[in-house]
Amino acid sequence: MKSRVTISDVAKAAGVSNSAVSYALNGKAGVSEQTRDKVLSVASRMGWRPNRAAKALSDASTRTVGLVLTYDTAVLSIESYTMELIAGLTAEFEKAGYSLLVRSSSSRRHELAVLREWVAAGAVDAVLLMNVELGDPRIELFREHPRMPVLLLCDESLSGGLPALSDNGRAATHLVVDYCHGLGHRRIARVAGSEQMGHTFIRDNAFREESAAFGMDYLCLHADYSPESGDRCTRRLLSLPQPPSAIVYDSDVMALAALKAAASMGVRVPDDLSIISWDDSFMCRMSSPGVTALNRDVVARGRKAAGMLIDLAEGRTVQPHAEVADDLIVRGSSAPVGDECVGVEVAV
Amino acid sequence: MKSRVTISDVAKAAGVSNSAVSYALNGKAGVSEQTRDKVLSVASRMGWRPNRAAKALSDASTRTVGLVLTYDTAVLSIESYTMELIAGLTAEFEKAGYSLLVRSSSSRRHELAVLREWVAAGAVDAVLLMNVELGDPRIELFREHPRMPVLLLCDESLSGGLPALSDNGRAATHLVVDYCHGLGHRRIARVAGSEQMGHTFIRDNAFREESAAFGMDYLCLHADYSPESGDRCTRRLLSLPQPPSAIVYDSDVMALAALKAAASMGVRVPDDLSIISWDDSFMCRMSSPGVTALNRDVVARGRKAAGMLIDLAEGRTVQPHAEVADDLIVRGSSAPVGDECVGVEVAV
Repeated sequence: MKSRVTISDVAKAAGVSNSAVSYALNGKAGVSEQTRDKVLSVASRMGWRPNRAAKALSDASTRTVGLVLTYDTAVLSIESYTMELIAGLTAEFEKAGYSLLVRSSSSRRHELAVLREWVAAGAVDAVLLMNVELGDPRIELFREHPRMPVLLLCDESLSGGLPALSDNGRAATHLVVDYCHGLGHRRIARVAGSEQMGHTFIRDNAFREESAAFGMDYLCLHADYSPESGDRCTRRLLSLPQPPSAIVYDSDVMALAALKAAASMGVRVPDDLSIISWDDSFMCRMSSPGVTALNRDVVARGRKAAGMLIDLAEGRTVQPHAEVADDLIVRGSSAPVGDECVGVEVAV
Repeated sequence: MKSRVTISDVAKAAGVSNSAVSYALNGKAGVSEQTRDKVLSVASRMGWRPNRAAKALSDASTRTVGLVLTYDTAVLSIESYTMELIAGLTAEFEKAGYSLLVRSSSSRRHELAVLREWVAAGAVDAVLLMNVELGDPRIELFREHPRMPVLLLCDESLSGGLPALSDNGRAATHLVVDYCHGLGHRRIARVAGSEQMGHTFIRDNAFREESAAFGMDYLCLHADYSPESGDRCTRRLLSLPQPPSAIVYDSDVMALAALKAAASMGVRVPDDLSIISWDDSFMCRMSSPGVTALNRDVVARGRKAAGMLIDLAEGRTVQPHAEVADDLIVRGSSAPVGDECVGVEVAV
């Protein structure tokens, strides 16, 4: 049996004092953020495990799944998606007595530090990763530490071989573009999420390919999910000499902001402009007009993810799973294209 | 030093086997829910603490605060309040390296079992209690276990002497009733939350007293925060021979549902009916017309609660704190009362 990696070993390898390592590993103040990151990274690489004796004395399972929310607080507090996901996750976890451990983070770098801490300390039984990015460093972290189960909410092609629950962005894109084409729209646009997000990348490609296949003009602007960015991008698109007659938004919040922006510019929805949201929500149902949206049940998605996470935490294997967006919920915000698209003059 | 309470002691007192106690205390399957509740209750009463050796070996602090969400999943996933609170809590926790441990529960009874488990196992450093009810059994639990810090989101008068963060429902009620009176409304109504909720009770009394002081007619219906109940209560109120000219809703979701209900009945907002929401949200801002709401910053409330919880977890005392609702954000849903209130005929 290999001897246990001690705090002294980590201190030596990281070139810091024993007490600095202890502070860093126990999440205590008294050590700079850089040192903490370094110690956690070194400890994680060396396979350091805390509290072996403690673990042996207690139950090795924490019955806890970790989730780091790396969001702008203002966006997090208004988007429906995350709360719906958490509602589904915790409802399903509860059946098996599992808890959700939530941390907030303001940057990817900080999120990585939290994840390293969880991996090093065995603080959770499994981790859920949202908003997977292209070349996401979190994937590397979990590939290096296969003992910590992880589930990614992203397309299987982006998960680096780790278990994934996909929302099948390609099939959903086909549904949306086909719907627009059927209504006679020939110039469509999309206000997408951040360009580095994996799901944005998948949808970007799919929208480009689908619209080309249908012979439609397609234009995409990337925003940050805030209502302000939804408003700004909508105004830019509607100010074009040949504005699109339909715009698809990557979130309900941006679609709702677009309704307001269009109204303030005198653009009638759905007469002059059709608005479609990727995420459905109570807001899409309640707005005037209601917003046409993909029928994705995010609460059910949370439940499905929870089931897969419990399987992973308890040592069972799971297959990558792709959910299928059933259909569009058509509401008052979308309609057949008008006889002519009237350009509007605006100050931007 | 008193000798430690063992699993055998608990088993004897509860009249069950040692293994049943072990299953129950470790949150494992293999024991009925009744037995689990009983064991947890007995263990908690006897002051049983798990993993003393483990605790001594590791850091005694978990740097974790527990929150049980006892909600209907459908309501949880659409209400803005909880996600805003969580966004504020976790953002503030993060500065001190704290996590939020979230459990979901479908009943108060089940929530109590989870809380007893946390208290018995020392699974968290502090607990946040939402939606405090009249005669809430959770208050008794934490009064019996003063070593587990707790913060209640409720009026100080309802907290049984435990630390509380209040939203000052009385002052806010005065603001709302005074505003309605100033607009000339003389018949107001309220669609309130569940009658057993502490904050509903506080507001019920305050609304009754304030409207009486202003010489206004006041009627209150109790709903369950769902859009369906908001719709139903609105229809009932508007079907009265002398319908109210202004209705105050205890949540944004119910206020939004009321906008739709009024429109479908041909009642014009704000001409025939003013609608006011207790909770503000992105939805209130984005709807048409926008919904007048109390200017309560729930994210800031979450941050404040987090700061108090960290103080409590680290052994510092906190004073009961009452936040003051600054003002009303007046939007298009409220206006001076019309010359005459037109009753409408509806099928209910």
